[in-house]
Amino acid sequence: MLSPVRAGTPGEAATSDEAWLQAMLDAEAALTRAQAGIGTVPKEAAETVTRVARAEALDLRALALASREAANPVVSLVAALARAVADVSPEAAEYVHRGSTSQDILDTGAMLVATRTLELIAADLAAAAESLARLAREHRDTVMPGRTLALQAVPTTFGLKAAGWRRLLLDAHRRIVAVLDGGLPVSLGGAAGTLAGYLEYALVDGDERAGDTDGYVGLLLDGFAAETGLARPPLPWHSLRTPVADLGAALAFTTGALGKIAIDVQTLGRTEVAEVAEPSVAGRGASSAMPHKRNPVLATLIRSASLQVPLLAAGLTQCLVTEDERSAGVWHAEWSPLRECLRLTAGAAHTAVELCAGLEVHPGRMRDNLALTGDQVVTERIAARLAPRLGRAAAKRLLAEVADEVRTSGRPLAQVLAAHPEAVGLPTGPELDRLCEPARYTGAAGALVDREVGRA
Amino acid sequence: MLSPVRAGTPGEAATSDEAWLQAMLDAEAALTRAQAGIGTVPKEAAETVTRVARAEALDLRALALASREAANPVVSLVAALARAVADVSPEAAEYVHRGSTSQDILDTGAMLVATRTLELIAADLAAAAESLARLAREHRDTVMPGRTLALQAVPTTFGLKAAGWRRLLLDAHRRIVAVLDGGLPVSLGGAAGTLAGYLEYALVDGDERAGDTDGYVGLLLDGFAAETGLARPPLPWHSLRTPVADLGAALAFTTGALGKIAIDVQTLGRTEVAEVAEPSVAGRGASSAMPHKRNPVLATLIRSASLQVPLLAAGLTQCLVTEDERSAGVWHAEWSPLRECLRLTAGAAHTAVELCAGLEVHPGRMRDNLALTGDQVVTERIAARLAPRLGRAAAKRLLAEVADEVRTSGRPLAQVLAAHPEAVGLPTGPELDRLCEPARYTGAAGALVDREVGRA
Amino acid sequence: MLSPVRAGTPGEAATSDEAWLQAMLDAEAALTRAQAGIGTVPKEAAETVTRVARAEALDLRALALASREAANPVVSLVAALARAVADVSPEAAEYVHRGSTSQDILDTGAMLVATRTLELIAADLAAAAESLARLAREHRDTVMPGRTLALQAVPTTFGLKAAGWRRLLLDAHRRIVAVLDGGLPVSLGGAAGTLAGYLEYALVDGDERAGDTDGYVGLLLDGFAAETGLARPPLPWHSLRTPVADLGAALAFTTGALGKIAIDVQTLGRTEVAEVAEPSVAGRGASSAMPHKRNPVLATLIRSASLQVPLLAAGLTQCLVTEDERSAGVWHAEWSPLRECLRLTAGAAHTAVELCAGLEVHPGRMRDNLALTGDQVVTERIAARLAPRLGRAAAKRLLAEVADEVRTSGRPLAQVLAAHPEAVGLPTGPELDRLCEPARYTGAAGALVDREVGRA
Amino acid sequence: MLSPVRAGTPGEAATSDEAWLQAMLDAEAALTRAQAGIGTVPKEAAETVTRVARAEALDLRALALASREAANPVVSLVAALARAVADVSPEAAEYVHRGSTSQDILDTGAMLVATRTLELIAADLAAAAESLARLAREHRDTVMPGRTLALQAVPTTFGLKAAGWRRLLLDAHRRIVAVLDGGLPVSLGGAAGTLAGYLEYALVDGDERAGDTDGYVGLLLDGFAAETGLARPPLPWHSLRTPVADLGAALAFTTGALGKIAIDVQTLGRTEVAEVAEPSVAGRGASSAMPHKRNPVLATLIRSASLQVPLLAAGLTQCLVTEDERSAGVWHAEWSPLRECLRLTAGAAHTAVELCAGLEVHPGRMRDNLALTGDQVVTERIAARLAPRLGRAAAKRLLAEVADEVRTSGRPLAQVLAAHPEAVGLPTGPELDRLCEPARYTGAAGALVDREVGRA
Repeated sequence: MLSPVRAGTPGEAATSDEAWLQAMLDAEAALTRAQAGIGTVPKEAAETVTRVARAEALDLRALALASREAANPVVSLVAALARAVADVSPEAAEYVHRGSTSQDILDTGAMLVATRTLELIAADLAAAAESLARLAREHRDTVMPGRTLALQAVPTTFGLKAAGWRRLLLDAHRRIVAVLDGGLPVSLGGAAGTLAGYLEYALVDGDERAGDTDGYVGLLLDGFAAETGLARPPLPWHSLRTPVADLGAALAFTTGALGKIAIDVQTLGRTEVAEVAEPSVAGRGASSAMPHKRNPVLATLIRSASLQVPLLAAGLTQCLVTEDERSAGVWHAEWSPLRECLRLTAGAAHTAVELCAGLEVHPGRMRDNLALTGDQVVTERIAARLAPRLGRAAAKRLLAEVADEVRTSGRPLAQVLAAHPEAVGLPTGPELDRLCEPARYTGAAGALVDREVGRA
Repeated sequence: MLSPVRAGTPGEAATSDEAWLQAMLDAEAALTRAQAGIGTVPKEAAETVTRVARAEALDLRALALASREAANPVVSLVAALARAVADVSPEAAEYVHRGSTSQDILDTGAMLVATRTLELIAADLAAAAESLARLAREHRDTVMPGRTLALQAVPTTFGLKAAGWRRLLLDAHRRIVAVLDGGLPVSLGGAAGTLAGYLEYALVDGDERAGDTDGYVGLLLDGFAAETGLARPPLPWHSLRTPVADLGAALAFTTGALGKIAIDVQTLGRTEVAEVAEPSVAGRGASSAMPHKRNPVLATLIRSASLQVPLLAAGLTQCLVTEDERSAGVWHAEWSPLRECLRLTAGAAHTAVELCAGLEVHPGRMRDNLALTGDQVVTERIAARLAPRLGRAAAKRLLAEVADEVRTSGRPLAQVLAAHPEAVGLPTGPELDRLCEPARYTGAAGALVDREVGRA
Repeated sequence: MLSPVRAGTPGEAATSDEAWLQAMLDAEAALTRAQAGIGTVPKEAAETVTRVARAEALDLRALALASREAANPVVSLVAALARAVADVSPEAAEYVHRGSTSQDILDTGAMLVATRTLELIAADLAAAAESLARLAREHRDTVMPGRTLALQAVPTTFGLKAAGWRRLLLDAHRRIVAVLDGGLPVSLGGAAGTLAGYLEYALVDGDERAGDTDGYVGLLLDGFAAETGLARPPLPWHSLRTPVADLGAALAFTTGALGKIAIDVQTLGRTEVAEVAEPSVAGRGASSAMPHKRNPVLATLIRSASLQVPLLAAGLTQCLVTEDERSAGVWHAEWSPLRECLRLTAGAAHTAVELCAGLEVHPGRMRDNLALTGDQVVTERIAARLAPRLGRAAAKRLLAEVADEVRTSGRPLAQVLAAHPEAVGLPTGPELDRLCEPARYTGAAGALVDREVGRA
Repeated sequence: MLSPVRAGTPGEAATSDEAWLQAMLDAEAALTRAQAGIGTVPKEAAETVTRVARAEALDLRALALASREAANPVVSLVAALARAVADVSPEAAEYVHRGSTSQDILDTGAMLVATRTLELIAADLAAAAESLARLAREHRDTVMPGRTLALQAVPTTFGLKAAGWRRLLLDAHRRIVAVLDGGLPVSLGGAAGTLAGYLEYALVDGDERAGDTDGYVGLLLDGFAAETGLARPPLPWHSLRTPVADLGAALAFTTGALGKIAIDVQTLGRTEVAEVAEPSVAGRGASSAMPHKRNPVLATLIRSASLQVPLLAAGLTQCLVTEDERSAGVWHAEWSPLRECLRLTAGAAHTAVELCAGLEVHPGRMRDNLALTGDQVVTERIAARLAPRLGRAAAKRLLAEVADEVRTSGRPLAQVLAAHPEAVGLPTGPELDRLCEPARYTGAAGALVDREVGRA
């Protein structure tokens, strides 16, 4: 209720308590299957565990409450799962969580949740970027005020702006995909990262391969990776938290990229600017008090996420500094912020798809806004024209004066220049008018758009 | 499930979605009562609204989903409440949310939730501080190694350590109580902070007092404050976010104070140090892999909160920078972090009550640990004794040598000193032994404890 | 060079390396004077130390480089000071840093620097608030658009806006003054917070009072506090970091308050809005490229600080979680962020004085901007007027339609309403025009301003 | 003085005000050379600018002070450079900063500084990783307690720990190198990202190629990239801040990785643990009060950086949300934190080289510490051995009891087990002793080390 940016989105479902619980159960089941694959767990036991390991069969609230006793939810999860399996097959229950440790399950579950959520995010980023590519092509030559330090500066085009937004989303997409492609890893280290427990149970079972430590561990890791669809890490990473820090960085970047679009949409959509508007949907953006308003709710939601995620992600990066083979608290401080980063980003990306697909662009208002200042946005150009005769510094000073006169008189730049005795060497008449026309001073905007998104 | 520090604690209940919804309904009801108190709403209507405004009567999930359409949950909440009231009395429904705006309700609701949660926190801090006062008195003279930069430095007492922890909790308590006493304010500004909507409805009803703007607004604010139990703010604070920033600061401080205790408990509880242990409770602290472990779960939970809250609170402080009369996104970025700060802090404080009440202290291990280094912890003292004769710098150099010899020889400091030709001017025999005894070099530790917590 | 918000401001000087070094030297000198006051150091020695303890006499760069060897600058500072004193009086040199520890000096020095900088900040906040009070009085009835979610909402006044800004600065001022009044404390704990070293040297000197630990320590603390002008803390606070966390919180709040003003000034100063402008100063705000621009540099500088300080302050709050009697790294992580918080905030406050004193307000543009939307900003009012007849929901729906018509037709609200068949029960003619006039729908804005700043 | 982690390191020099100024001058000079390469600036002018553009020729302090007037240092830098060039050749002065904008210069300068600093960091990370590889190989079979939640858990090896540290440094190295290889880009956009100013000056000079916008811009960008050694960006990035966010993320990760090593070194170096020690250097680690201490200053310095950089980097990520074509404040909030991230990380990496190269490892203390608990660290193993007979749950319960008896009796695990009636199915005599020997329960530690660093 307090986080509308994600309410009801696919990313919310993918990161719910139920989803997290199921992912941990998936990890437990995959572990038994991996062990079964090597032969240290009976195939039937692994099948039974896999069948029983369903979130809906467990009491989520009870597990959450019990998690206080162990400072993590896995201890009680294992007990509950073992009981559920034992109801079906007491023998199979002996193979639940065999040789394992809480962190292997919680971390592997987290990586499953993360993978599933990143895939949603990547798809939404790609969709939003595609809409922006279309907007960029359509508005290749739609001139608008370029704004710096909150003021109109020189002309630009909406096409270039949209191309820039798209570039940021592609940058975000690449970072998300890099995390996915690099492969979020399974966690498999046993009590303190040596895999000793896994090996010991194999030995107990008389598995001769356990004598070849490297070989056995390799088989187990490969099997676990294959069963979960995750990657095999170079080392157990209980206290080497690269995957979590990477997730934080990629997600923070993504909300930052989305937030840039949101803040621009809000700025351009201000009542006095009105160059863009959010897609119009019945009932959307209503105010509880003011009938005339159609609030930019999509951009607002996205922006709210972009303010939160970088801080949460900083917390994840800080968790790299984690003592021992497993920290007493630093590890635990990752879970909730990681989930929040995932679901806020997923919500923001999902929201951006709709925003980018339906964004209304008002070229007329852009032109009107340029006209507001009497074409002062091309003073840079005129200064360049005057520079060869007057020197650059003098030309700039002159134009500052001219701009003041435009401001106070309300007359357009061309008129003021035409009447100014020091403005020598400029063309006159219609040629001067053209020189002062903002639409003719957009530099390489069109060419840059073509390069980025191709021609329409 | 991913936040065991708060799972099942009173603070969790006080900040749940249901609690937040009820608080917003309480705000709506209090508003109608306040308006009824002035006479601009019929008393019966206010009573009806008050009776109907129960969270359990509304569909929380539907409200959460609908919150995306307005970027806040109040628009749909008002509609749902009005429908529920209309089922009982269509006339009364006309008075729901009259003249109001979403932010008045959401902010007032948030202040109600915060007040209720801060009261829990304050009580828990006081209880934990009381336990620490007891520990400080009991261990006034329990000597232990003072540690700096991870090494034994000079002796201190456990009493002084506990007194310091208590002082931090009192500091936190004072900050929480200051926020409560300053009075978290109602939010009442109407659409853009001028209260125009409230005044207009009063005028529509022909309320003559509405002509006296200042008087009417004063009555309304006082009434709303009285009905909610919150304070009257100097100005509408839709975009003057002092109360939220203050909450963030007080809560961040509190988790920091609690975190200091947690990190010390963990450090002192390490296997090799073993000077304190968490209270022993059957089943608590079990490991999923290692039968012999009794993990310091309480300190772990507290520490996990102390790592998260300062960052979340920084986000709240950043939200002071909020444009216009209501920001498009900055306001929205407060809700979830504020709730998270409240419930993590409440969970941590609640956990600390148990930790402080039952903390086991092992004076024997403290003495053993002091002996580990052959009493090097009193080299500072001996240097002071030698200084008048040798000069301070030379005395310090000499002691560094002596300490090296203690370290390599394994003989205690007094022995090495007695044999050292340059260590002139020291007493000899038992007097030298006493001089080197850590328990006799605790400085003002006892006096400081007495001052802080009185004598046992 | 990379931090123009503070470049050349008094706050920069107050927090420079030289100022910090001098403050630490002041602490060393005050300590000898305090010891002299009790009689454990000769008065002449204390005078000599005080005379010699001048920053300009030491090699700052050499001290900075040497600080790596001890992980703090005090060890080499003490050596350098002792050498400098010994040049004058070898006897006096024996009394430098007597019984003390690095942290006592560094922390006390930091509190001196902080006190001096906070005083600058408090004065600047008060000056800026005074300017805002004047603006609020002058513009009590200057109507302007109230804006929410980036759109014009209902009318407000510039007076109310300025009063809100002032209120935030007063809130900041109160927090700064509270830190000053609470008294930033001296740090005096000796090696591990027991003051044992100080006591030992007193005993060595045969000072009988040192037998009365509590009494002696009290005299020493009082003396040190008196000599530095700082407060006496309840306990040594080497690892109880309340003062530093408090500083961070107060400074972060202050930049947040200043940042709110900055963001509003920028928003209102946008080319298309142009309701305010920064004070005009020759050469200020020049662009390297665009002759016509007068950039809002003051607001830009302030905003840049407001984005940095809350994060730095969060770091200070995190440093509450500091292990042992002195952390190996957490303490060290405070220094640079604390200094940065102080000087960025001081720079921002100093900048705000000029911004608030000279802010240009353009009531004409405010009126023009209200007219832009055909008076839609009063739809809330009209809805209230129609509600008794139509019911509130229907009235709101009708006004939404009417607003659409205003938007598309370009005709003002009163005209559209007059022609609308369902808009029954409204006055007609000039009375309807008055009802739709934004300047007549400012609610309690004037009354609130009067209450805050008095009448002009 | 307040940041000893970087004091006097190469990274400090690479990021000094002088270095930053020189980098901006390098950017100005490279721009004229790039323009000369296309023919729009005379070669002699470019040579003159390049010769004159030396930081030592300008007044750094005056530039810093003047930066307040424009909110950036480039406006006054350009003026100063133009004056200095004009002293040599008034004609050449006309070509300084031609068509350019402050942000092009400041951003390009920042990327030059960053590139130079990242190269230092990468080299230091590689060196430290090499030392750790050596340690890992040397201590492949050095058994030590694996610790989780602050307690001894199961045995591990120091080799595996060192291999994990190295893996983190390699992860950091890869992220730093990825930023370098991806190529930090030149900034070249002109006033608002359209390059219009550059094109206009080319047209003014009658350069026909400027008619082919895409071609001309391509030549200019390629030339500027070649002259600076930086990369060509896909689009002007004035408000697309990917490069800065990437820097922040890579640097934050790096300090996190270094911080993990630091915290482990401190933990293992505690007086009571004493399994490792920092390299011993005369005078290093001295305390101002305690002659016997040799403080772990290198780890302390590194840790202090690791606490600061993630927060500063979060600020950089937040700066992605930057409005318009150039923000009024968000851009400005990047500079100081970026510099701080660079120099703190460089300082920490430099410090780590020495720490890793000289780290002392004490295998004897590791064995002693394992013995402290009577071999309880192998209870996991024994539980696995008993499980086939007793069932896993019962075996674990039994071992918990046994562990309690070991704890209270002080007898080693094997003895207690041998005497326990329920511990059935275990070997006896020396075979049981071997089973309980921690050094024989290190799982795959050796194999993992071999895989990571090869055999010695």
